[in-house]
Amino acid sequence: MASTKRIALLGSTGSIGRQTLDVIDSLPDRFRVIALACHRSADDIVAQARQHRPELVAVVDPEAARKVGEALQGSGIEVAAGLAGVTRCAVHPEADVVVAAAAGVAGLRPVWEAARAGKRLALANKEPLVVAGHLIRAEAARSGAVLLPIDSEHSAIFQSLLGQHRESVARVILTASGGAFRDLPQDELARVTPEQALAHPTWKMGPKVTVDSATLMNKGLELIEARWLFDLAPEMLGVVLHRESIVHSLVEFVDGAVMAHLAQPDMRLPIQFALSYPARLARPEPPPDLAHLGALRFEPFDGERWPCVELARRAMAMGGTAPSALSAADEVAVAWFLDGRIPFTAIPHTIERALTAHDVKPGDSLEALLEADAQVRRFLERTQGR
Amino acid sequence: MASTKRIALLGSTGSIGRQTLDVIDSLPDRFRVIALACHRSADDIVAQARQHRPELVAVVDPEAARKVGEALQGSGIEVAAGLAGVTRCAVHPEADVVVAAAAGVAGLRPVWEAARAGKRLALANKEPLVVAGHLIRAEAARSGAVLLPIDSEHSAIFQSLLGQHRESVARVILTASGGAFRDLPQDELARVTPEQALAHPTWKMGPKVTVDSATLMNKGLELIEARWLFDLAPEMLGVVLHRESIVHSLVEFVDGAVMAHLAQPDMRLPIQFALSYPARLARPEPPPDLAHLGALRFEPFDGERWPCVELARRAMAMGGTAPSALSAADEVAVAWFLDGRIPFTAIPHTIERALTAHDVKPGDSLEALLEADAQVRRFLERTQGR
Repeated sequence: MASTKRIALLGSTGSIGRQTLDVIDSLPDRFRVIALACHRSADDIVAQARQHRPELVAVVDPEAARKVGEALQGSGIEVAAGLAGVTRCAVHPEADVVVAAAAGVAGLRPVWEAARAGKRLALANKEPLVVAGHLIRAEAARSGAVLLPIDSEHSAIFQSLLGQHRESVARVILTASGGAFRDLPQDELARVTPEQALAHPTWKMGPKVTVDSATLMNKGLELIEARWLFDLAPEMLGVVLHRESIVHSLVEFVDGAVMAHLAQPDMRLPIQFALSYPARLARPEPPPDLAHLGALRFEPFDGERWPCVELARRAMAMGGTAPSALSAADEVAVAWFLDGRIPFTAIPHTIERALTAHDVKPGDSLEALLEADAQVRRFLERTQGR
Repeated sequence: MASTKRIALLGSTGSIGRQTLDVIDSLPDRFRVIALACHRSADDIVAQARQHRPELVAVVDPEAARKVGEALQGSGIEVAAGLAGVTRCAVHPEADVVVAAAAGVAGLRPVWEAARAGKRLALANKEPLVVAGHLIRAEAARSGAVLLPIDSEHSAIFQSLLGQHRESVARVILTASGGAFRDLPQDELARVTPEQALAHPTWKMGPKVTVDSATLMNKGLELIEARWLFDLAPEMLGVVLHRESIVHSLVEFVDGAVMAHLAQPDMRLPIQFALSYPARLARPEPPPDLAHLGALRFEPFDGERWPCVELARRAMAMGGTAPSALSAADEVAVAWFLDGRIPFTAIPHTIERALTAHDVKPGDSLEALLEADAQVRRFLERTQGR
C-alpha cells in the first residue's frame, strides 16, 4: 500500500490552488491536506478548510484572518495571520509536499523558507524562482529540498529529463501558444482592451498570468525559471510557437535526439505529477489523440513582435537584482494596463524603462532582492507617464 | 576518460552494418571493431577487415569464406566459416556490444547464443525477436544480457521509457511513414512493380525491409518486437501514420502524459545510441527544426488497407510457433514478389494462407521454432498458386 502524502497548499483560493484541491479530492487515498494558506479570500478558504480539515490555515490579510478565525472557532483548525502564518504552513513539520501557488512576489519568503527546511516543493508560483532562483537553488542543494515544477512547460522538461544524463542535454525549447493576440495585426495591439487580454485561447488562469501570456512575458519568466530549475545556461534555452498547446516542451540532446512531452492542456496533470512524483497515478482523461488532431503545428518565435521575451533575456543576462526589477516592473505595468492607465503595448515599454534605470546589485540576499522590487515600484509610480 | 567499447558486428556488409561502421569511424576513440560477420559478400568484408582490423571475421557461405581466408592470409585476422563462425563472433569474449544486423531468420542462432552469453545486444535484425522473443527474453533475464533496440521506433520507445516506472506505461504507439504506396489508390496496389516497391520515401534499407515497409508488414513485425523488448501486452501496442518520419514513437502514461521521441530519419542515430548507451555522444547533424518543418502530421492507421499488420497481430495472439510461421511466410512472399511470381497484393494473401494452415506448437525451443519456419516454406512451395 502506498502511503498518503500530506500537502501544504499556499495560494489555495487561486486557480492553481483550486485545481490542486481537485486533484487531491480525486485521489483521497493518496493525498491529504495538512495546511492551507491564501491572501485574503476568507469565505473561500473557510469552505476549503471545512471540507479538507487541515491542521493549520493561514491568511495574509489581518482582517480576513480574523474573519476566518471566527468562522473556524471550535473546529480544531488553527488559524494564523500574516506572512508569518503562511511561512508556518510552508515549513509545517508534517507536510510531505509544499505546493507554492501564491501569486506574485508575495510567495518568495515562504518558498525560501520551505527550501531552507528541505521540503519537497511543488512550484506554480513563478516569481520566487525568477527573482531568487540562484538563492533558492543553492539553499535546496544545501538542505536537500527537491524542486518540482507545476508549470506545464517546466513539468514537461522535468519529465523529459528523467533518466537522462545532465551532460547529454544540448538545448531546451519551451513551447508558447502565442497568447490571446497571436493573430492580431501588430498595429492593432495598441488598442486591445483588458477584457480581450483576459480571454486566453487555451488555458484558464488568473488575470496577471493571462496578461503575461498575452504579452508573452510569461514565456520570458519561464525561461528564467527553467534556467534555475534545470541549471541551464541562458543560451541553451529557446522558444517555439505551438498553437495547440499539446506539446509542452522539447529537450534536444547532443546526439540529435529530441524528447517531447505531450498532454492535454489541463493544469491538473502537471499538478498531479508534482504531487505523485516519482510515481504516476491514473487519471480518467485520455491523452491527446494525434490521429484525431491531425497535426501539431510549429512556427518560429517572433522576438520583434513580443519584446517581453527579449526583456526577460536581458534581465537574465544582467543577473543579480535585474530579474527582480523585471518582475516588479511587469507586475506594475500589468496592473496599470488592467486599470486602463496604459495601453497594452506600453507594458514592455514600461518594463524596459524600469530595467534601463535599474542599478543592478548582486542580489545575494532576500532583502536585497525585495528592496530592488520595492525600488522599481517606487521609481515607476514617481515617473509614470514620462 | 571513457573507455573504448569493442564491437562485434553481425551482418557488417548490409545497410545497417555499413552504417554501424560509419558510426564507429566517426568516434574512433570510443568504439573499436573486434569481430565482423556477413553472409557471402567476400570483397566487401575483406575491405572492411583491412580497414578495421578485427580479431575475427566470419562468413556463412563456405566458398565466400574460403575467398576471404585467402585474401586475409598473413594479416593476423582469423577467418571462420559457417553459422558456427558467426556464432563465435556473437559470443566473442572481448566483445562489449554485439550488433545483430543480419537479415532474416539466419540471425536467430547467433543472437540466441549472445543472449545466453550475457552480452549487451544491439538488435537491428527483427526476426530473432519476432520468432523467438519469448525465449530470448527469458534467456537474457537469466544471463543478464541487455537488449538494446536499433530500429528507430524501438530505440525511440527505449529512450522514452528511461527513468519511467514500468507500471506507469499505458500504451506504446509506433509511428508508420506509410511506405512507398501510402497515397496510391487501393485498386492500383495490385499492379505495383518491385522497382516501385523498392523506392522508399524516407529510409534507405535493404530490399526485404523496404518491401515489408511498403506492405506495412514491418510495422506488424515491430509490434511483435516491441512486445518482447518492453514486455508489453499486445493490446498496449498501437500504430499511427506519420508521414514525416520525425516522431519515431509515442509512449502514453497512465496519468495522460505522452513522451514522444523525435529525430531526423537517419539510422546512424539509433545505432550510435545503442553503442553509446547509457551515455549520449555528440553528432554533427542538428536535431529536427520544428519551426522550420511547420507541422508534424498524423493520420489514423487503416487496417483494412494494410492487412499485414492485422496478420502480425493474429500471429502474436496465437503465440508459440505462429510468429515464426508469419515471418517465414513473409520472407517467401516478398521473395516471390521481387521475382515477379506474385503481385504485390498477393503478399498478405500468401501469408494468411500459411498462417491459417499452420499447426501452432508451443515453440519452446529454437529447434521447434526453426522447424515451424522450414515447414511453412515447404508448405508454400508445395501449394504455390492455389
